[in-house]
Amino acid sequence: MELSRSSSSTSANTSGSTMLCAILADPIYHVRLPHTFNTLMGQWNKDVLLVPVHVGPDELTKVIDGLRHTKNMAGFAVTVPHKTAVLGLCDEVSERAHAVGAVNVVRREAGGRLVGDILDGVGFVAGLRQSGIEPRGMSVFLAGAGGAANAIAFGLAEAGIASLGIWNRTQSKCEDLRERLLRLYPELPINIRSNDPTGAELVVNATSLGLRDGDPQPLDMEKLQAHQIVAEIIMKPVMTPLLLAAEARGCRICLGAPMLDCQLTLMAEFMGISR
Amino acid sequence: MELSRSSSSTSANTSGSTMLCAILADPIYHVRLPHTFNTLMGQWNKDVLLVPVHVGPDELTKVIDGLRHTKNMAGFAVTVPHKTAVLGLCDEVSERAHAVGAVNVVRREAGGRLVGDILDGVGFVAGLRQSGIEPRGMSVFLAGAGGAANAIAFGLAEAGIASLGIWNRTQSKCEDLRERLLRLYPELPINIRSNDPTGAELVVNATSLGLRDGDPQPLDMEKLQAHQIVAEIIMKPVMTPLLLAAEARGCRICLGAPMLDCQLTLMAEFMGISR
Repeated sequence: MELSRSSSSTSANTSGSTMLCAILADPIYHVRLPHTFNTLMGQWNKDVLLVPVHVGPDELTKVIDGLRHTKNMAGFAVTVPHKTAVLGLCDEVSERAHAVGAVNVVRREAGGRLVGDILDGVGFVAGLRQSGIEPRGMSVFLAGAGGAANAIAFGLAEAGIASLGIWNRTQSKCEDLRERLLRLYPELPINIRSNDPTGAELVVNATSLGLRDGDPQPLDMEKLQAHQIVAEIIMKPVMTPLLLAAEARGCRICLGAPMLDCQLTLMAEFMGISR
Repeated sequence: MELSRSSSSTSANTSGSTMLCAILADPIYHVRLPHTFNTLMGQWNKDVLLVPVHVGPDELTKVIDGLRHTKNMAGFAVTVPHKTAVLGLCDEVSERAHAVGAVNVVRREAGGRLVGDILDGVGFVAGLRQSGIEPRGMSVFLAGAGGAANAIAFGLAEAGIASLGIWNRTQSKCEDLRERLLRLYPELPINIRSNDPTGAELVVNATSLGLRDGDPQPLDMEKLQAHQIVAEIIMKPVMTPLLLAAEARGCRICLGAPMLDCQLTLMAEFMGISR
């Protein structure tokens, strides 16, 4: 009773030789990665399956030790609340993951060695490029200095932006981010800004403001100008108040979804699965 | 992008709320359970996915500790070479698993408590019943005293057979099995037999003899009589030399596959997944 393989490979198709990936989260019910990643694996015709692993902070070390010793585990994605803790549980982490202080993907190498990286920022940059926007040489205004903003700041710095302005309500977090960025990119002009994005070519919201009705503005939308490109990390709603305001002012906009979609390929490749 | 659920649910359908099961084995590539179990879960319309977990003996404790702390893990099946070792890693095991000295399924209860059982024998009996054969009250000849024979002997004893004859080339294993059976079933008449099945109503091959061309006979096939029922645990080839000989002598025969098929439902139910 063999079922045919197709772009929507069936879970009944799972066999003893299926390679596993996982995503670690708590809570887990809302994660989209098992669906999107497995759809990609189906398109690539790979016998690889990404499964949700629901683990709390107190059990994280034990669960990761179990994954480390599972021979058919290619690697795992990491999300809230484990991104920082996993940094300390890998055998090796990338320079940017160290600098950001977080890991969102881990490759399991033969023998159980765990290598961590963070691909949020690289995924964000890949999403921009997929939309035809090359951030190299651009002046960037970044709203936020939290986890996502950190990853995106390092991704943009790596992509060769000309300058970075950071705005965050808690200014000490901006200063901390600037300090860590300058260690890796000592030549990059970095300013701590007000909420006014005037002058930037690329304006990025990397806060969660816009996710819920009635959220404060992530930045002063009144100041947006038509020549600016406005990018969002929020995926739901698709059109956030920021994107609606930007569109109304004639700005080119970038939706939140491409960042995650582009990360799928990057994550798969990082875990040794190629198209 | 929601895919419709159907009897062949897609792995792309895997979501954050998918409940996991696993099978632990080494090697793992040949295990059929991910395919057959997930097909059943599709038929039952359950958001449950059984994945292969390839783990060696030296890493078994760590991997099981990881599974224990995975909140969305319903349980796992256990096969070669881990059935005996897992017995010692559960928090509770059934009386029959203790007696057999092996576990082939573990339920993960809330909080991570692991409860083990062995369903090979119960599955064998369920397979007989599905074929319309009720072993209660029958005299049984059992060839073999290894792992599978042990589980089947306890399953048949639990089902209320009238008597059991055991034949094995290494007689000390028969004596050991008899001793353990008598602890749980002190009233059951148990004889250590030669390879001659004469007199039994039900004749069972629970050795691996017949799997490969040129294997010795598991029992003296020349002695089979038309009134006897002959059951096999080997699934490949479907028609073993024993079954061919039995059929030629006019015996009713039972194939090996139903034992495993019947175990699927039993395993799912044991792990708390009901139709």
